[in-house]
Amino acid sequence: MVTKNDIKFINNLKHKKFRDLNNCFVVEGIKSINDFIDSNYKLIKLYSVDCSHFNDLNNQFQIDYKLLKKISYLTNPDDHFALFQKKEIQSINVNGLIIALESIRDPGNLGTIIRTCDWFGVNEIICSLDSVDCYNPKVIQASMGSLSRVSIKYLNLKGFLKSSKHLRIGTTLNGSSIYDLNLNKAVLVFGNESKGISDELIELIDSKVTIPRFQKNNLPESLNLASSVAIILGEIKRKEL
Amino acid sequence: MVTKNDIKFINNLKHKKFRDLNNCFVVEGIKSINDFIDSNYKLIKLYSVDCSHFNDLNNQFQIDYKLLKKISYLTNPDDHFALFQKKEIQSINVNGLIIALESIRDPGNLGTIIRTCDWFGVNEIICSLDSVDCYNPKVIQASMGSLSRVSIKYLNLKGFLKSSKHLRIGTTLNGSSIYDLNLNKAVLVFGNESKGISDELIELIDSKVTIPRFQKNNLPESLNLASSVAIILGEIKRKEL
Repeated sequence: MVTKNDIKFINNLKHKKFRDLNNCFVVEGIKSINDFIDSNYKLIKLYSVDCSHFNDLNNQFQIDYKLLKKISYLTNPDDHFALFQKKEIQSINVNGLIIALESIRDPGNLGTIIRTCDWFGVNEIICSLDSVDCYNPKVIQASMGSLSRVSIKYLNLKGFLKSSKHLRIGTTLNGSSIYDLNLNKAVLVFGNESKGISDELIELIDSKVTIPRFQKNNLPESLNLASSVAIILGEIKRKEL
Repeated sequence: MVTKNDIKFINNLKHKKFRDLNNCFVVEGIKSINDFIDSNYKLIKLYSVDCSHFNDLNNQFQIDYKLLKKISYLTNPDDHFALFQKKEIQSINVNGLIIALESIRDPGNLGTIIRTCDWFGVNEIICSLDSVDCYNPKVIQASMGSLSRVSIKYLNLKGFLKSSKHLRIGTTLNGSSIYDLNLNKAVLVFGNESKGISDELIELIDSKVTIPRFQKNNLPESLNLASSVAIILGEIKRKEL
């Protein structure tokens, strides 16, 4: 059964405060739901038009598509909708590449970055405290299940960089070419979508890198943030091969 | 003056049919508007809270922010809003790299791809006829002015590939590594966000390439389309240096 209160509860989970208060978040679509189950996220409730897709799970509710449309955040919902318990990331594995994001605002960008990190085997992302919440439904949607495999920790980025023993690389518009870069252990810092890395953090950076621009007139001012992360990870990983 | 009819007209420009019928589209934000002016797009009307930002343009209308909020497509509108005439791309310059997109659906993806192509000096994009319209406001927004410098042609992709004298490279999940790829003249085909390249087009492909996956468990199924384009262009352009 889905009561009016359930619908109201689910609708409220669009808001970070409500997700924090209730320690849970929404995942839609069979692939993503299975990814979170496989990564040992605790399933709280599953609403599905066909529960036979899932093995003996508790808290399954078979519902019709009309009702699914009422609870779903999507215009054209997938057949499956789940609530999971949030996972608190305790510590960061500092033995590899870490992606640090300052004041990232766009949920689609964060979700896409999580998906790209997953592809390239980069499992550690750090976000400044004012960044968009990784349990935002648009982040979950764009990450396509990859959030279940990548650790995201929100912290004071300035403090983290200050105490970091890794090389701190800042991605800017005026650094050396990423094609000359060679690293495997580092914190790779990306700034806000429109402002880039703040002066406060730039001071803590050991080295700046840039993706070379090939348009002759130099008119495009910048690249999309998620595309920049993709290009730089593609280049770093190439050198590992 | 902005009449009720003007507001209705502008609102209708969200729809492709109406844009086609009236041969115009909306651009918001001073940087993007200037990019289209500099690229010789014909400005039809400019609504601005401060027209002094622009040189002697005809059809300028100074409006207050309250009115701007009524016509803008954005939740937090920039101070400037313009209507431009669409440009018909007559022919494709086949002397370099061409990006071909099959059935691309997401306007944010197309806009991001246009921005990435602009950055890397790739000025030719071909879209299959069922792809999202490049004058869709979300495409314009995500392209950040780059649409003014990149040519996009909608055509029958099958026919184009059949008659193409270029190497036809298809991006798939089971091709050879992009890191081993070496090319400067080619048509680089990307498939739909969820389905990839159709069987019909795969038959016309000379060679398949893939971005190597580094996650050990092979669980991430795919990359975001715009991120894939970014990684592959970054790699092709690196070899030009």
